[in-house]
Amino acid sequence: MTALPAELSDLIKAGPLVHLATINPDGSPQVSVIWIGIDGDQLVSGHLGRAVKVRNIERDPRVVLSFDTPREPGIFNTPYAVLRARATVAPSDQAWDLLDQLTKIYMSPDTEFPVPKRPGYIVRYAIERIGGMGPWA
Amino acid sequence: MTALPAELSDLIKAGPLVHLATINPDGSPQVSVIWIGIDGDQLVSGHLGRAVKVRNIERDPRVVLSFDTPREPGIFNTPYAVLRARATVAPSDQAWDLLDQLTKIYMSPDTEFPVPKRPGYIVRYAIERIGGMGPWA
Repeated sequence: MTALPAELSDLIKAGPLVHLATINPDGSPQVSVIWIGIDGDQLVSGHLGRAVKVRNIERDPRVVLSFDTPREPGIFNTPYAVLRARATVAPSDQAWDLLDQLTKIYMSPDTEFPVPKRPGYIVRYAIERIGGMGPWA
Repeated sequence: MTALPAELSDLIKAGPLVHLATINPDGSPQVSVIWIGIDGDQLVSGHLGRAVKVRNIERDPRVVLSFDTPREPGIFNTPYAVLRARATVAPSDQAWDLLDQLTKIYMSPDTEFPVPKRPGYIVRYAIERIGGMGPWA
Protein backbone atom coordinates (compact mmCIF):
# COMPACT_ATOMS: atom_id res chain seq x y z
CA MET A 1 0.00 0.00 0.00
CA THR A 2 1.16 3.53 -0.78
CA ALA A 3 1.19 6.32 1.81
CA LEU A 4 -0.50 9.63 1.12
CA PRO A 5 1.93 12.50 0.43
CA ALA A 6 1.12 15.61 2.50
CA GLU A 7 0.20 17.72 -0.56
CA LEU A 8 -2.28 15.09 -1.69
CA SER A 9 -3.71 14.74 1.77
CA ASP A 10 -4.18 18.53 1.92
CA LEU A 11 -5.94 18.51 -1.43
CA ILE A 12 -8.33 15.75 -0.36
CA LYS A 13 -9.08 17.55 2.92
CA ALA A 14 -10.16 20.58 0.85
CA GLY A 15 -13.02 18.47 -0.53
CA PRO A 16 -12.57 17.90 -4.27
CA LEU A 17 -15.29 16.03 -6.11
CA VAL A 18 -13.82 12.58 -6.71
CA HIS A 19 -14.44 10.59 -9.89
CA LEU A 20 -14.62 6.90 -8.93
CA ALA A 21 -14.14 4.46 -11.82
CA THR A 22 -15.31 0.87 -11.32
CA ILE A 23 -16.02 -2.04 -13.67
CA ASN A 24 -19.55 -3.07 -14.65
CA PRO A 25 -20.57 -6.76 -14.95
CA ASP A 26 -20.20 -6.49 -18.76
CA GLY A 27 -16.61 -5.21 -18.41
CA SER A 28 -17.41 -1.61 -19.34
CA PRO A 29 -16.26 1.31 -17.20
CA GLN A 30 -18.62 2.94 -14.68
CA VAL A 31 -17.96 6.34 -13.11
CA SER A 32 -19.64 7.93 -10.09
CA VAL A 33 -18.77 11.27 -8.56
CA ILE A 34 -18.39 10.93 -4.79
CA TRP A 35 -17.18 12.59 -1.60
CA ILE A 36 -14.08 11.15 0.00
CA GLY A 37 -12.45 11.22 3.41
CA ILE A 38 -9.10 10.16 4.84
CA ASP A 39 -8.53 7.49 7.49
CA GLY A 40 -4.80 7.03 8.10
CA ASP A 41 -3.25 6.06 4.78
CA GLN A 42 -6.55 4.91 3.35
CA LEU A 43 -9.37 6.81 1.72
CA VAL A 44 -12.98 6.18 2.73
CA SER A 45 -16.42 6.87 1.30
CA GLY A 46 -19.88 6.40 2.78
CA HIS A 47 -22.98 5.10 0.99
CA LEU A 48 -26.51 4.66 2.32
CA GLY A 49 -27.59 2.38 -0.51
CA ARG A 50 -26.04 -0.59 -2.29
CA ALA A 51 -25.68 1.35 -5.54
CA VAL A 52 -24.09 0.10 -8.78
CA LYS A 53 -20.63 1.35 -7.76
CA VAL A 54 -20.84 -0.57 -4.46
CA ARG A 55 -21.94 -3.78 -6.19
CA ASN A 56 -19.21 -3.33 -8.82
CA ILE A 57 -16.56 -3.04 -6.09
CA GLU A 58 -17.86 -6.16 -4.34
CA ARG A 59 -17.33 -8.06 -7.61
CA ASP A 60 -14.04 -6.40 -8.69
CA PRO A 61 -12.02 -4.35 -6.16
CA ARG A 62 -9.86 -2.62 -8.79
CA VAL A 63 -10.81 1.05 -8.93
CA VAL A 64 -9.41 4.44 -9.90
CA LEU A 65 -10.07 7.64 -7.95
CA SER A 66 -9.31 10.89 -9.76
CA PHE A 67 -9.86 14.55 -8.95
CA ASP A 68 -8.49 17.93 -9.89
CA THR A 69 -7.67 21.13 -8.08
CA PRO A 70 -9.56 24.35 -8.81
CA ARG A 71 -8.42 25.75 -12.14
CA GLU A 72 -6.62 29.08 -12.04
CA PRO A 73 -6.36 31.45 -15.02
CA GLY A 74 -2.97 31.42 -16.70
CA ILE A 75 -1.91 28.17 -15.03
CA PHE A 76 -1.11 25.74 -17.83
CA ASN A 77 -0.91 22.56 -15.83
CA THR A 78 -3.78 22.45 -13.37
CA PRO A 79 -2.71 19.85 -10.80
CA TYR A 80 -4.77 16.66 -10.63
CA ALA A 81 -4.45 13.24 -9.06
CA VAL A 82 -5.18 9.77 -10.42
CA LEU A 83 -5.05 7.06 -7.75
CA ARG A 84 -5.22 3.37 -8.51
CA ALA A 85 -6.63 1.56 -5.49
CA ARG A 86 -8.06 -1.67 -4.16
CA ALA A 87 -11.46 -1.09 -2.59
CA THR A 88 -13.35 -3.09 0.00
CA VAL A 89 -16.99 -2.66 1.00
CA ALA A 90 -18.32 -3.29 4.50
CA PRO A 91 -21.84 -2.77 5.87
CA SER A 92 -21.60 -0.13 8.58
CA ASP A 93 -23.71 1.73 11.11
CA GLN A 94 -21.20 4.61 10.74
CA ALA A 95 -21.80 5.32 7.04
CA TRP A 96 -24.18 8.19 7.83
CA ASP A 97 -21.71 9.66 10.36
CA LEU A 98 -18.97 9.62 7.74
CA LEU A 99 -21.28 11.33 5.24
CA ASP A 100 -22.25 13.88 7.86
CA GLN A 101 -18.58 14.55 8.62
CA LEU A 102 -17.89 14.99 4.88
CA THR A 103 -20.87 17.36 4.61
CA LYS A 104 -18.94 19.77 6.88
CA ILE A 105 -16.12 19.76 4.31
CA TYR A 106 -18.05 19.53 1.05
CA MET A 107 -20.93 21.80 2.01
CA SER A 108 -20.42 23.97 5.08
CA PRO A 109 -19.18 23.50 8.67
CA ASP A 110 -22.61 23.83 10.27
CA THR A 111 -24.67 21.73 7.88
CA GLU A 112 -26.00 18.26 8.69
CA PHE A 113 -26.12 15.55 6.02
CA PRO A 114 -29.64 16.09 4.64
CA VAL A 115 -30.81 12.48 4.72
CA PRO A 116 -32.26 10.62 7.73
CA LYS A 117 -29.71 8.56 9.62
CA ARG A 118 -29.66 4.86 8.77
CA PRO A 119 -27.13 2.04 8.32
CA GLY A 120 -25.19 1.86 5.07
CA TYR A 121 -21.83 0.88 3.64
CA ILE A 122 -18.31 2.18 4.06
CA VAL A 123 -15.83 1.66 1.23
CA ARG A 124 -12.11 1.71 2.09
CA TYR A 125 -9.52 2.39 -0.60
CA ALA A 126 -5.97 1.03 -0.23
CA ILE A 127 -3.90 3.14 -2.62
CA GLU A 128 -1.65 1.16 -4.95
CA ARG A 129 -0.31 3.83 -7.27
CA ILE A 130 -0.37 7.61 -7.28
CA GLY A 131 -0.32 9.40 -10.64
CA GLY A 132 -1.55 12.58 -12.22
CA MET A 133 0.19 15.92 -12.30
CA GLY A 134 1.36 17.77 -9.21
CA PRO A 135 3.82 17.50 -6.32
CA TRP A 136 2.52 13.95 -5.67
CA ALA A 137 3.30 12.54 -9.14
CA MET B 1 -26.26 8.84 -30.36
CA THR B 2 -27.34 11.49 -27.88
CA ALA B 3 -27.27 15.21 -28.68
CA LEU B 4 -25.46 17.65 -26.40
CA PRO B 5 -27.81 19.84 -24.33
CA ALA B 6 -26.88 23.54 -24.52
CA GLU B 7 -25.93 23.74 -20.82
CA LEU B 8 -23.54 20.83 -21.22
CA SER B 9 -22.09 22.27 -24.39
CA ASP B 10 -21.51 25.57 -22.57
CA LEU B 11 -19.77 23.78 -19.72
CA ILE B 12 -17.47 21.89 -22.08
CA LYS B 13 -16.63 25.10 -23.98
CA ALA B 14 -15.46 26.60 -20.67
CA GLY B 15 -12.70 23.99 -20.58
CA PRO B 16 -13.18 21.60 -17.65
CA LEU B 17 -10.54 18.96 -17.07
CA VAL B 18 -12.13 15.74 -18.30
CA HIS B 19 -11.60 12.38 -16.59
CA LEU B 20 -11.52 9.71 -19.30
CA ALA B 21 -12.11 6.14 -18.06
CA THR B 22 -11.05 3.28 -20.34
CA ILE B 23 -10.46 -0.44 -19.82
CA ASN B 24 -6.97 -1.94 -19.52
CA PRO B 25 -6.07 -5.29 -21.17
CA ASP B 26 -6.47 -6.99 -17.76
CA GLY B 27 -10.01 -5.62 -17.36
CA SER B 28 -9.11 -3.02 -14.73
CA PRO B 29 -10.13 0.62 -15.08
CA GLN B 30 -7.70 3.23 -16.43
CA VAL B 31 -8.23 6.97 -16.03
CA SER B 32 -6.49 9.84 -17.81
CA VAL B 33 -7.24 13.52 -17.41
CA ILE B 34 -7.60 15.16 -20.82
CA TRP B 35 -8.74 18.27 -22.71
CA ILE B 36 -11.85 17.94 -24.79
CA GLY B 37 -13.46 19.81 -27.67
CA ILE B 38 -16.83 19.74 -29.42
CA ASP B 39 -17.46 18.82 -33.05
CA GLY B 40 -21.19 18.86 -33.79
CA ASP B 41 -22.82 16.37 -31.42
CA GLN B 42 -19.55 14.54 -30.79
CA LEU B 43 -16.69 15.25 -28.45
CA VAL B 44 -13.10 15.11 -29.67
CA SER B 45 -9.65 14.87 -28.11
CA GLY B 46 -6.19 15.10 -29.65
CA HIS B 47 -3.14 12.98 -28.81
CA LEU B 48 0.38 13.17 -30.21
CA GLY B 49 1.36 9.72 -28.93
CA ARG B 50 -0.30 6.31 -28.94
CA ALA B 51 -0.62 6.31 -25.14
CA VAL B 52 -2.28 3.64 -22.98
CA LYS B 53 -5.68 5.33 -23.21
CA VAL B 54 -5.51 5.38 -27.01
CA ARG B 55 -4.53 1.70 -27.18
CA ASN B 56 -7.27 0.84 -24.67
CA ILE B 57 -9.89 2.57 -26.84
CA GLU B 58 -8.67 0.74 -29.96
CA ARG B 59 -9.30 -2.54 -28.12
CA ASP B 60 -12.53 -1.56 -26.30
CA PRO B 61 -14.46 1.55 -27.41
CA ARG B 62 -16.59 1.76 -24.26
CA VAL B 63 -15.52 4.81 -22.26
CA VAL B 64 -16.82 7.26 -19.68
CA LEU B 65 -16.04 10.99 -19.72
CA SER B 66 -16.71 12.88 -16.50
CA PHE B 67 -16.05 16.41 -15.32
CA ASP B 68 -17.31 18.87 -12.78
CA THR B 69 -18.04 22.57 -12.67
CA PRO B 70 -16.06 24.92 -10.42
CA ARG B 71 -17.18 24.43 -6.84
CA GLU B 72 -18.89 27.40 -5.21
CA PRO B 73 -19.08 27.93 -1.43
CA GLY B 74 -22.48 27.13 0.03
CA ILE B 75 -23.64 25.22 -3.05
CA PHE B 76 -24.55 21.74 -1.89
CA ASN B 77 -24.81 20.03 -5.23
CA THR B 78 -21.93 21.11 -7.44
CA PRO B 79 -23.04 20.23 -10.96
CA TYR B 80 -21.09 17.52 -12.75
CA ALA B 81 -21.49 15.39 -15.85
CA VAL B 82 -20.88 11.70 -16.46
CA LEU B 83 -21.08 10.75 -20.15
CA ARG B 84 -21.04 7.19 -21.38
CA ALA B 85 -19.66 7.14 -24.91
CA ARG B 86 -18.33 5.00 -27.73
CA ALA B 87 -14.89 6.19 -28.81
CA THR B 88 -13.04 5.75 -32.08
CA VAL B 89 -9.38 6.50 -32.75
CA ALA B 90 -8.03 7.73 -36.07
CA PRO B 91 -4.49 8.77 -37.02
CA SER B 92 -4.61 12.44 -38.00
CA ASP B 93 -2.43 15.26 -39.21
CA GLN B 94 -4.85 17.61 -37.42
CA ALA B 95 -4.26 16.31 -33.87
CA TRP B 96 -1.80 19.10 -33.09
CA ASP B 97 -4.19 21.74 -34.51
CA LEU B 98 -6.96 20.45 -32.25
CA LEU B 99 -4.61 20.56 -29.25
CA ASP B 100 -3.53 24.08 -30.22
CA GLN B 101 -7.18 25.14 -30.48
CA LEU B 102 -7.89 23.63 -27.05
CA THR B 103 -4.85 25.43 -25.63
CA LYS B 104 -6.69 28.73 -26.32
CA ILE B 105 -9.53 27.49 -24.11
CA TYR B 106 -7.63 25.57 -21.43
CA MET B 107 -4.68 27.91 -21.12
CA SER B 108 -5.11 31.36 -22.64
CA PRO B 109 -6.33 32.83 -25.96
CA ASP B 110 -2.87 33.83 -27.17
CA THR B 111 -0.91 30.73 -26.23
CA GLU B 112 0.33 28.13 -28.70
CA PHE B 113 0.36 24.43 -27.81
CA PRO B 114 3.88 24.09 -26.36
CA VAL B 115 4.95 20.98 -28.29
CA PRO B 116 6.37 20.90 -31.84
CA LYS B 117 3.77 20.17 -34.51
CA ARG B 118 3.59 16.56 -35.65
CA PRO B 119 0.98 13.98 -36.71
CA GLY B 120 -0.99 12.21 -33.98
CA TYR B 121 -4.41 10.76 -33.23
CA ILE B 122 -7.88 12.19 -32.91
CA VAL B 123 -10.40 10.38 -30.73
CA ARG B 124 -14.11 10.98 -31.40
CA TYR B 125 -16.70 10.25 -28.73
CA ALA B 126 -20.28 9.41 -29.70
CA ILE B 127 -22.30 10.06 -26.55
CA GLU B 128 -24.64 7.23 -25.55
CA ARG B 129 -25.91 8.36 -22.18
CA ILE B 130 -25.72 11.62 -20.23
CA GLY B 131 -25.76 11.42 -16.44
CA GLY B 132 -24.43 13.30 -13.46
CA MET B 133 -26.08 16.17 -11.67
CA GLY B 134 -27.16 19.39 -13.35
CA PRO B 135 -29.60 20.71 -15.96
CA TRP B 136 -28.40 17.96 -18.34
CA ALA B 137 -29.26 15.00 -16.09
